[in-house]
Amino acid sequence: MGNRLSFIILLTVALTLVMCDVSNDKIEDDGHLIKKKTPSECNLPNELKTEIVSYSSTVEKIIKAAVNGSFKGVTYQELTLFVDTFGNRIAGSQNLENAIDYMINKSIADGLDNVHGEDVQVPHWVRGFESATLIEPHNSSLSILGLGGSIGTSPEGILAEVLVVKTFDDLQSKAEQAKGKIVVYNEDFVSYGSAVIYRSNGAIEASKVGAVASLIRSISPFSLNTPHTGMQSYAENVTKIPGAAITIEDAHFLQRLQDEGKTIKILLKMEAQTLPDTTSRNVVAEIKGTEHPEKVVIVSGHIDSWDVGNGAMDDGGGLFISWGALALLKSLGLTAKRTVRAIFWTAEELGFVGAYQYATDHANETDNFIFMMESDNGTFNPIGLQYSAGTTGGCITQEVMKLLAPINATGTQQSSSVGSDIEIWTAEGVPGGSLDTENDKYYWYHHSNADTLEAESTEYLDKNTALWASVAYVLADLSIDFPRETT
Amino acid sequence: MGNRLSFIILLTVALTLVMCDVSNDKIEDDGHLIKKKTPSECNLPNELKTEIVSYSSTVEKIIKAAVNGSFKGVTYQELTLFVDTFGNRIAGSQNLENAIDYMINKSIADGLDNVHGEDVQVPHWVRGFESATLIEPHNSSLSILGLGGSIGTSPEGILAEVLVVKTFDDLQSKAEQAKGKIVVYNEDFVSYGSAVIYRSNGAIEASKVGAVASLIRSISPFSLNTPHTGMQSYAENVTKIPGAAITIEDAHFLQRLQDEGKTIKILLKMEAQTLPDTTSRNVVAEIKGTEHPEKVVIVSGHIDSWDVGNGAMDDGGGLFISWGALALLKSLGLTAKRTVRAIFWTAEELGFVGAYQYATDHANETDNFIFMMESDNGTFNPIGLQYSAGTTGGCITQEVMKLLAPINATGTQQSSSVGSDIEIWTAEGVPGGSLDTENDKYYWYHHSNADTLEAESTEYLDKNTALWASVAYVLADLSIDFPRETT
Repeated sequence: MGNRLSFIILLTVALTLVMCDVSNDKIEDDGHLIKKKTPSECNLPNELKTEIVSYSSTVEKIIKAAVNGSFKGVTYQELTLFVDTFGNRIAGSQNLENAIDYMINKSIADGLDNVHGEDVQVPHWVRGFESATLIEPHNSSLSILGLGGSIGTSPEGILAEVLVVKTFDDLQSKAEQAKGKIVVYNEDFVSYGSAVIYRSNGAIEASKVGAVASLIRSISPFSLNTPHTGMQSYAENVTKIPGAAITIEDAHFLQRLQDEGKTIKILLKMEAQTLPDTTSRNVVAEIKGTEHPEKVVIVSGHIDSWDVGNGAMDDGGGLFISWGALALLKSLGLTAKRTVRAIFWTAEELGFVGAYQYATDHANETDNFIFMMESDNGTFNPIGLQYSAGTTGGCITQEVMKLLAPINATGTQQSSSVGSDIEIWTAEGVPGGSLDTENDKYYWYHHSNADTLEAESTEYLDKNTALWASVAYVLADLSIDFPRETT
Repeated sequence: MGNRLSFIILLTVALTLVMCDVSNDKIEDDGHLIKKKTPSECNLPNELKTEIVSYSSTVEKIIKAAVNGSFKGVTYQELTLFVDTFGNRIAGSQNLENAIDYMINKSIADGLDNVHGEDVQVPHWVRGFESATLIEPHNSSLSILGLGGSIGTSPEGILAEVLVVKTFDDLQSKAEQAKGKIVVYNEDFVSYGSAVIYRSNGAIEASKVGAVASLIRSISPFSLNTPHTGMQSYAENVTKIPGAAITIEDAHFLQRLQDEGKTIKILLKMEAQTLPDTTSRNVVAEIKGTEHPEKVVIVSGHIDSWDVGNGAMDDGGGLFISWGALALLKSLGLTAKRTVRAIFWTAEELGFVGAYQYATDHANETDNFIFMMESDNGTFNPIGLQYSAGTTGGCITQEVMKLLAPINATGTQQSSSVGSDIEIWTAEGVPGGSLDTENDKYYWYHHSNADTLEAESTEYLDKNTALWASVAYVLADLSIDFPRETT
C-alpha cells in the first residue's frame, strides 16, 4: 500500500466512523444513537409554504411518470443491464472504468448537460486467492473475505494459534496471550457503527500486541455463511498484518472452541496486494439551471463497489436513482432555476477518494452547493429523507417532503450526519440529505457476494427515483436558496 | 457410482418426491398440496379420553424438566458439542462413523437399554474440488455445490454453451438446442416438492436431449448467494452427466443473459466421484417397556448429514431431540408399558439407505411398531404433530397433543405422508408422526453451508424434546395399542 493511500485512509477513519454510525442509526436501540430531532414547530412564512405547496402538481407529474408512466420500470431495467454487463467495480479495476465510460455515454445520450469525467487517482487493491483453514482441533474450511487494503500472506500462508476476543478491552486484558497468534474479533453486532471499528482498526490493535493476523466477525445481523468485506486501516509505525472477515457462524464456533479450552489453529492464505494508484473518474451530469446555473442541487451515489457480488445495492441503487432523477426530469422537460447536478463518485469504498478529490478541485464553488443529496444506504421501500440542516432548513425539508405523500414517503429525520461522500461537505455546514428507506436488511447484503439485484425491487426503485427527482427539482427551483444556517 | 447405489436411488425417487412434497406442504398455496384433514368429530370412549387426560401431570413433569428444570438447555448444549466435535457427517465419511461411536457411547453412559449399532452398507460419494466459471459474456465466478451422486468432469472441465430452461416442458420444446450444452434449470420455487424434481431428475432429462452437464437453481425461497446440494439420480441407459446447483441469484442472472440474446459459456470443473460402498450403522437405544417390551414406539432422526455446513439442523436437531427424549424420560425414571426406542438413521441423505436396511432386517417385527416418529423438517418453535393414522388414531393423537398445551404445541395435521425415513413404514400403514414446527425458513439453511447452529435455538430444542418425550411416553404407556386402521 502506498503512503498516499495510507494517508488517505488515516484521514478518513474518523469520518468513516461517524458516517457509518449515522448510516445505521435507525436500527439502533441501545442509547448510543446519534441524537436526531425534527423541528417540532415550524414558522415558515406563509408565502414560502404556499410556494412549496404549489409544486404539488409538478411532483405528482414526476411521481406518475416514475411509478405508472413512461419511466415506470426504467430504473430497475437500467440498473439490471448495468450490473449484468459490468459486474462488480472495485476502484482500480477495468470493470469500473468501463462502467464509468458507459455512464458518461449514457448521460450524453439522454441529452444531459455538461457530462464529463473528472480524474481521480485511486488506490488499486486486488484480492487474489484467499483461504482460511481450521487445522486444530479438526480440519475444516472457513469462508472468508480479505479486507480492503490488507496485505497478503506469504505463499505458504500463516499457520498460527488463535486467540478469540470480544472487544478491544478484552484484547488488552489478554495482550500477553496474543503474541504470535491470529486474533479473532467476535464482536457483537449492536449496530454497524459499534462493530465497524473492529474492521477498521482490528489489524492495528492486534499488531500492537504482537499478533500475526486479524480476523473479524463479519459485520451483519444475519448470515447464511456469508462473509462481508470492507476497508481496514493500518497505522504508521505499527507492523502491517493481514486482515480478513470470517462468517458470524464461524466466529461463534471459534468462540465456543476457545471457551471449551480447545487449542485452535488456523492456516491463513491471502494473495492480497496493493498495486500502484490508477486513474479513475467522478462522473458529472447536469440539467443546467435557467436563472442561477452556477447554483447547484446535487444528487449522488457512488459508481464503484466492492469486488464481490455485483454492487447492485451498494451502490448501484443510489447510482441509478441519481441518474434516473436527471433522466426523468429531462424526459419531462422540467428545468429548474438552479442547476440539478448528478455526481457518480468513484472509489467511495476505498476511502471517499473521489469525493475528496472533488472537494479539492471545487473548493471555491462550495458556496454554490445549495443542497447535496446522496443515496448510499439502500434503495428499499422509501420512507423519506434524513437531512442535515438548520431549523429553517428543517422546516423547508418537512414541507417539501409532504409533497411525497402519493408514495407515502414524507418522513424527515434530522441527523448530525448524512450520506457517505457528501459528509465531507455537510460536516462543513452545507445542507444535505440522505435517502431514507426501510433498510433493516441492508447489512444482510452489504459488502458481500449477496449484494446483487435480489436486494432491489423495480417498484421501490421507481418510488426512489420519483422522490430523488422531486426533492432535487423543488429545492433547485424554489424562489429562495435553501438556507445555510449554523443552528 | 455402483449399481447398488443406482438401484437404491431409483427405488427411492418416487418415495422421495412424495416425502419432499409432504415435508413442505404447510407452505404451499398452489392447490397442489396433498390434502390433509383432521377428524372434525371424534367419538373416543370416555374411558380412553379420561385415561389420556390422566397423563397431564406426567406430561407437565416432562415439560417442566425440559423447559425449566434439570434438562433445560441440555439438548442444545449436547447438539453444540456434537457438531463442534464432528462437523458434517456424510455417509461414507470417518466423521459419520466417529459420530456414531459417540452416540452409542453416550447412550450407554446415559443408562439406556439395548444400545447398539446395526451395520448398513452405504454409498460413499465424495465431492472434491469443484468450480463453475462464467467465460462468456464476461468472466466471473459462480458459487456452486455439486449434487450428491454426481459424476465429476475431466480435470480440464467441461466448457460449453448454456441453455437456460424454466421447466422440463421448456427443455423439451428446446430439445434441439440442448445438444452439447450445459442445461441450466431456472425452476421456480413454488414448493420444495415442485422444485426438487429438477434436482432429482435434471441430469437425466438434460442428458436425454444431449446436454453435457446439468445445473439447477438451488432449491430455496431465499438466498445470500447460497448454493444448496442434495441427491440427484441417474437412470439406466441414459448417459451420466455431471450435476450441480448454482445460486438463485446466478440462475436469474443467466436467465437474463439468455433473454438478452447473449451467448453464455460456462467452464464446469468437478472432482466428484463415488467410491466403493462402506459400512455404516443405524444406532438403536431403548427404554425397555415393563409390560410389552416387544412392542415399540419409535422416535428418530438421522445422524448423517450433507458434507456442507455442519448439519446442526438437518438433522442434528431431530437426532438430538430423539436422543433427548429418551435421556429425559430415563432421568425422570419414566418407564412405559411398551418400549420407547430411539433410532438414529444412517445415510438418509443418500437415499434412506439406513432405513431400508432396518426395514429388511426387522421385517418380521413391523406388527410391533406401534407408532413411529421422525423429526427431519427442522426443530424450530414447535406447533405440534403431523400424523399418518386412521380416524380413531387421529382422535387419539388430538387428545394426546392437547397435553402439550403448556408449550402451546397442540396442533395436529393428518398427512398422507410423514417423516422421511419412517415413510417406508407409514406408507405400509404403520401409524406415525412428524414433528411440526414453525419451519418457514427451513429451506434457507437446508443442504447448504448455512446449516449450522444458527438455525437452532436452545428454547425451541427444549420444547421439542419435551414434546417428543411426552408423545412417545404416552403412546407407549396407554392401555391400548395405538390403532392400525385402514381408514
